[in-house]
Amino acid sequence: MNKKKVSLKDIAEKAQVSTALVSYVLNGKEKESRVGQEIAAKIKEIARELNYEPNYLAKSLRSGKTQTIGLIIADISNPFFANIARIVEDEAKKYGYTVIIGSSDEQAEKSWDLINVFLNRQVDGFVIVSSENTEEQIQYLMDKNVAFVLLDRHFPDLPTDFVSLDSYKAAFDAGMHLMEQGYQRVGLIAYKSGLFHMKERIRGYRESLEAGRVAFRPEWLREVGFNTIEEEIKAGIDDMLASDRRVDALIFATYRLAIAGLKYINSLGLKVPDDLAIVSFGQAEAFDLYYCPITYVLQPMEELGKTAVEILVRKLKNPDLEPQQILMQAQVMARNSSRLKVPVV
Amino acid sequence: MNKKKVSLKDIAEKAQVSTALVSYVLNGKEKESRVGQEIAAKIKEIARELNYEPNYLAKSLRSGKTQTIGLIIADISNPFFANIARIVEDEAKKYGYTVIIGSSDEQAEKSWDLINVFLNRQVDGFVIVSSENTEEQIQYLMDKNVAFVLLDRHFPDLPTDFVSLDSYKAAFDAGMHLMEQGYQRVGLIAYKSGLFHMKERIRGYRESLEAGRVAFRPEWLREVGFNTIEEEIKAGIDDMLASDRRVDALIFATYRLAIAGLKYINSLGLKVPDDLAIVSFGQAEAFDLYYCPITYVLQPMEELGKTAVEILVRKLKNPDLEPQQILMQAQVMARNSSRLKVPVV
Repeated sequence: MNKKKVSLKDIAEKAQVSTALVSYVLNGKEKESRVGQEIAAKIKEIARELNYEPNYLAKSLRSGKTQTIGLIIADISNPFFANIARIVEDEAKKYGYTVIIGSSDEQAEKSWDLINVFLNRQVDGFVIVSSENTEEQIQYLMDKNVAFVLLDRHFPDLPTDFVSLDSYKAAFDAGMHLMEQGYQRVGLIAYKSGLFHMKERIRGYRESLEAGRVAFRPEWLREVGFNTIEEEIKAGIDDMLASDRRVDALIFATYRLAIAGLKYINSLGLKVPDDLAIVSFGQAEAFDLYYCPITYVLQPMEELGKTAVEILVRKLKNPDLEPQQILMQAQVMARNSSRLKVPVV
Repeated sequence: MNKKKVSLKDIAEKAQVSTALVSYVLNGKEKESRVGQEIAAKIKEIARELNYEPNYLAKSLRSGKTQTIGLIIADISNPFFANIARIVEDEAKKYGYTVIIGSSDEQAEKSWDLINVFLNRQVDGFVIVSSENTEEQIQYLMDKNVAFVLLDRHFPDLPTDFVSLDSYKAAFDAGMHLMEQGYQRVGLIAYKSGLFHMKERIRGYRESLEAGRVAFRPEWLREVGFNTIEEEIKAGIDDMLASDRRVDALIFATYRLAIAGLKYINSLGLKVPDDLAIVSFGQAEAFDLYYCPITYVLQPMEELGKTAVEILVRKLKNPDLEPQQILMQAQVMARNSSRLKVPVV
């Protein structure tokens, strides 16, 4: 049996009020129209009884609002982004928004697709963890006056809202921490990327060496491509170990780089930290379980995600607000992988 | 400057054809209406030039199709589901579907919310990794003739489409593997859950002991609650070790359980596998990096995700197809954590 869809009119007849009144109440406008509380309750009760289902899609077309946020993350299979997605979802729910998630897989083209798909689905706004070479897409959203907030990564030349990590300071602190622990020859494995946060991590590392009066050696820094991580990390670590100033400590600029790097270090039979001390960006269960728990740069994930949602929600209410640009501070969580170096006697 | 939206009429005027013809072509119906290829190409070219943007929402209202699949996973912050989400996304894209993801956080209530939100957004169909106590929701989708496929978890009493793992066989194999490697007192840590796949893992474990002629001891099996994992795992492992038939091997029924369990085992200073051999469900980077790589039950994630999408797409084309119910086989990947037991001399 195909049950006929319940209409506002059905409810109005049963409640013995006008269809307009039912519409006001079910659209949450009873205050504006000064409907009595009792009659509003009665209308809602009848709607429930009859299993009334509002047609949100038609409603969206009229109101232009869908109470939906599009979240584009750089890679859903990376635990850092998956966790941040969870935080954004939970926070958005508090404000009555549903989050639609898509993963760009670090590809500008896929990011374009997602932006278009989400715009066509008429999301009210975006939270975006940008991929490389997507400035044009961000500019497009600005030109169209779409509300959005960049999360974790931003473009310094674009006057957008963003919530990111102070990557320069975080990498600087990581380098200083290792030198304070007695390590003198510190390497960095980062991504070869035009993304600002990655450049900042490299800059912070370089400046920590300067601050520690350690002369930088080109073979200590390796920038690897997204699609050739494993081979390039192996080659990079080989070069660092073959150097006449062999590294005694290594910083990984992301979680993925650390995982690939640690696997290779294990396969070489090197002991952390005696043969090589380690600090990595990105907290992860794998770091806790490692035989020598890995020192990591704690990023305030919860704060990053929540603040992004707050800024977006404010922006949706008041599109003319000045852009808010927030850089949050990370914290080096010292563990065994960077314990005080035992001097060779 | 607020640019006026380009209409079908604008394109029709420029192409010197009728608006109806433009509509046919841009809706991909040129074959039905026998439009010449040349004129179709011209219309598309002009639409591109003018930056014509179809109103998909209005279009969806007419066609009733949105080319969108709602994917509900049990927990986005669990790498197993995050990876499977990525696979479903990639596969759906091949068929021209966009995937909207939501995470139910193992809560029936949140799962209801998501189903309603996605229905209101008029997804064409669902792929669902069910949470506990959601049979009613699944029944609701069946009653409403909504197309869906259950993934990874299913309800044996509901005649739905599903693609799951043969959890019974996988757990049986895990137990047999440990006994073949010389371990005789095998424990299991699982979830206290009404979900079928979890019951099957427990059943498979129990029957492997029978097959190995090992007398089961109640303290060898611990079922822990979702929200009290850490305390209960500690208590469970303590009991297993205090038993007068102390376990020499332990199976974890999921990745999350293994992570919590291994942290506790580390803190006790137990050596894997000499003090305790380990096999776990759920492949993960943390297992590779562990000082003693963890033997795991390899689930055919790629196949699970792809097959779910294939079944759903077929179902969307032909809603009257009989339900397809597929149980896939897992494989025990033997590594050092369950290496041959050295007999105590």
